[in-house]
Amino acid sequence: MPDKVLIYSRFPKAQLTRFGERYELLNAAGKTEMFSAGELADVRAMITAGGTPLGGEAMDLLPTLGAIVCYGTGYEGIDLAAAAKRGIAVGHSPGANAASVADIAVMLMLAAVRRLPVADSYIRSGDWAGRKPSPMMRPQAGMRGRKVGVYGMGEIGRKIAARVAAFETEVGYFSRSKHDVPYHYLPSLEALADWCSVLVVAVRAGAETNHAVNADILRRLGSDGFVVNISRGSVIDEKALVAALTDQAIAGAGLDVFAKEPHAPDALTALPNVVLSPHLGGHTLESHVAMQDCVLANLEAFFAGKPLPYEIRGS
Amino acid sequence: MPDKVLIYSRFPKAQLTRFGERYELLNAAGKTEMFSAGELADVRAMITAGGTPLGGEAMDLLPTLGAIVCYGTGYEGIDLAAAAKRGIAVGHSPGANAASVADIAVMLMLAAVRRLPVADSYIRSGDWAGRKPSPMMRPQAGMRGRKVGVYGMGEIGRKIAARVAAFETEVGYFSRSKHDVPYHYLPSLEALADWCSVLVVAVRAGAETNHAVNADILRRLGSDGFVVNISRGSVIDEKALVAALTDQAIAGAGLDVFAKEPHAPDALTALPNVVLSPHLGGHTLESHVAMQDCVLANLEAFFAGKPLPYEIRGS
Repeated sequence: MPDKVLIYSRFPKAQLTRFGERYELLNAAGKTEMFSAGELADVRAMITAGGTPLGGEAMDLLPTLGAIVCYGTGYEGIDLAAAAKRGIAVGHSPGANAASVADIAVMLMLAAVRRLPVADSYIRSGDWAGRKPSPMMRPQAGMRGRKVGVYGMGEIGRKIAARVAAFETEVGYFSRSKHDVPYHYLPSLEALADWCSVLVVAVRAGAETNHAVNADILRRLGSDGFVVNISRGSVIDEKALVAALTDQAIAGAGLDVFAKEPHAPDALTALPNVVLSPHLGGHTLESHVAMQDCVLANLEAFFAGKPLPYEIRGS
Repeated sequence: MPDKVLIYSRFPKAQLTRFGERYELLNAAGKTEMFSAGELADVRAMITAGGTPLGGEAMDLLPTLGAIVCYGTGYEGIDLAAAAKRGIAVGHSPGANAASVADIAVMLMLAAVRRLPVADSYIRSGDWAGRKPSPMMRPQAGMRGRKVGVYGMGEIGRKIAARVAAFETEVGYFSRSKHDVPYHYLPSLEALADWCSVLVVAVRAGAETNHAVNADILRRLGSDGFVVNISRGSVIDEKALVAALTDQAIAGAGLDVFAKEPHAPDALTALPNVVLSPHLGGHTLESHVAMQDCVLANLEAFFAGKPLPYEIRGS
């Protein structure tokens, strides 16, 4: 008989196909209470989304739980201390979606700096054909020679930096520690924001980075400054961002993530100088396959009594 | 007294400031007939846009014309044979806007492949917050591992290739001759289209390349194929492109240039799987400065009796 695996968060069915081929899935889709204590009694592993809150109380509903496997890179919703206390291993899919997420970061950066939404709707509205005054008339600074700051130098940060460097920019970064990478290291987020005019947020979400990009940091980017976020909405103080965009303290923003998903504040969606996508950074065929590979590798090792190959350090 | 320079095409005033500081400008803004034969009699140089038609007849209105200086890289509007016959040198601004144009090419490629217009309006419409079914639900192939074909390997083509390669893609190209570049050479446009799933048009416009990207080439890209054009609208058969997009013979397109500017066919602007910008590839502060540097260098040399430093070969 196949091992039982609880699907804790809500996932599109297509993303579960490969898991269903190997395991008996209990698809709670965000509502664990739909299963009885009896049904959950022998569930030893679960698949969850890193952003879904998962504390000790929820873990205790599964008395034999031994592995929490996050689909994706993030695991900010998991109470790692609670898991450790209960001897539960926590795994994720490190780097599996890094290329796709880095691509979205660069897309948002270019689209914000070159004002793609304004350009696209100038054409679609018929204003271009009607020779109405172009909102793009005054040329703006492009990418060449710009200083681009990457906040966080994990797998995704590295891939963003490598892509951005190809645009004839200078790339700098700040992260807790200096890495062996060919980019300019700045000793603090403040210093990075002073140095660069485009700030790309690629740092891991957590208590340490919560609202790290605040009004002060944004102001340091300057009136030709842009901020791009593909990490988690919590890293940016969203109110401060809306204010900075509205007051034109910065020139624009490209956002794939938001403070309260699925939701972007009306004040943000009304702005022409932002480019928005609904948290789809890692959402490509190839990154889903790679993430599923990691999930399966973690589950297989766990049920074979081995350590998770993609275990979260410190869990 | 400063030398006279005719401004032949229509340019925003801000783009003429530096020329006005050095020369006496006759700003025809597309209407040479506004000046009398007497006023034009001693005009020895003109600044024009490469796309503006300029044949022998127009040249003959300026009996002492010795230099046609194109603002920008293109010069497809200039009858080079007619200029040569009259002993008129033709100059342009090679490569001055290459980085800015290459940036737009990559922006359009990423935005088309990752469906940015659909994503952005899913959020702005409130459908994401309203938890309406996402048009982005089914993951699509992203960039990693894709074969990207660059048609044309001039200054802009090279810069596009260098940028695209950073996205973990394979880059191939076709141009009349093989270049010393680290990309896969395909012997024909057909072969390139068979090989790649993203075709970026960066070839110079002209009789030789007119409608080179036709229904057959588009079909070869396949149903997961994309075409990006930052060169000139004439290189693509626009009707065939609209048909291929409508029939989903290809997946999408990113276009900065169109057959009849300023105009994009309604059938095109109605499609969700296209990303459009109003010919703003080279329109950044830094590329305008660089283009103006070339224009000034050409004019200065001409009035000093020297050959144009950026003369068009074969003119």
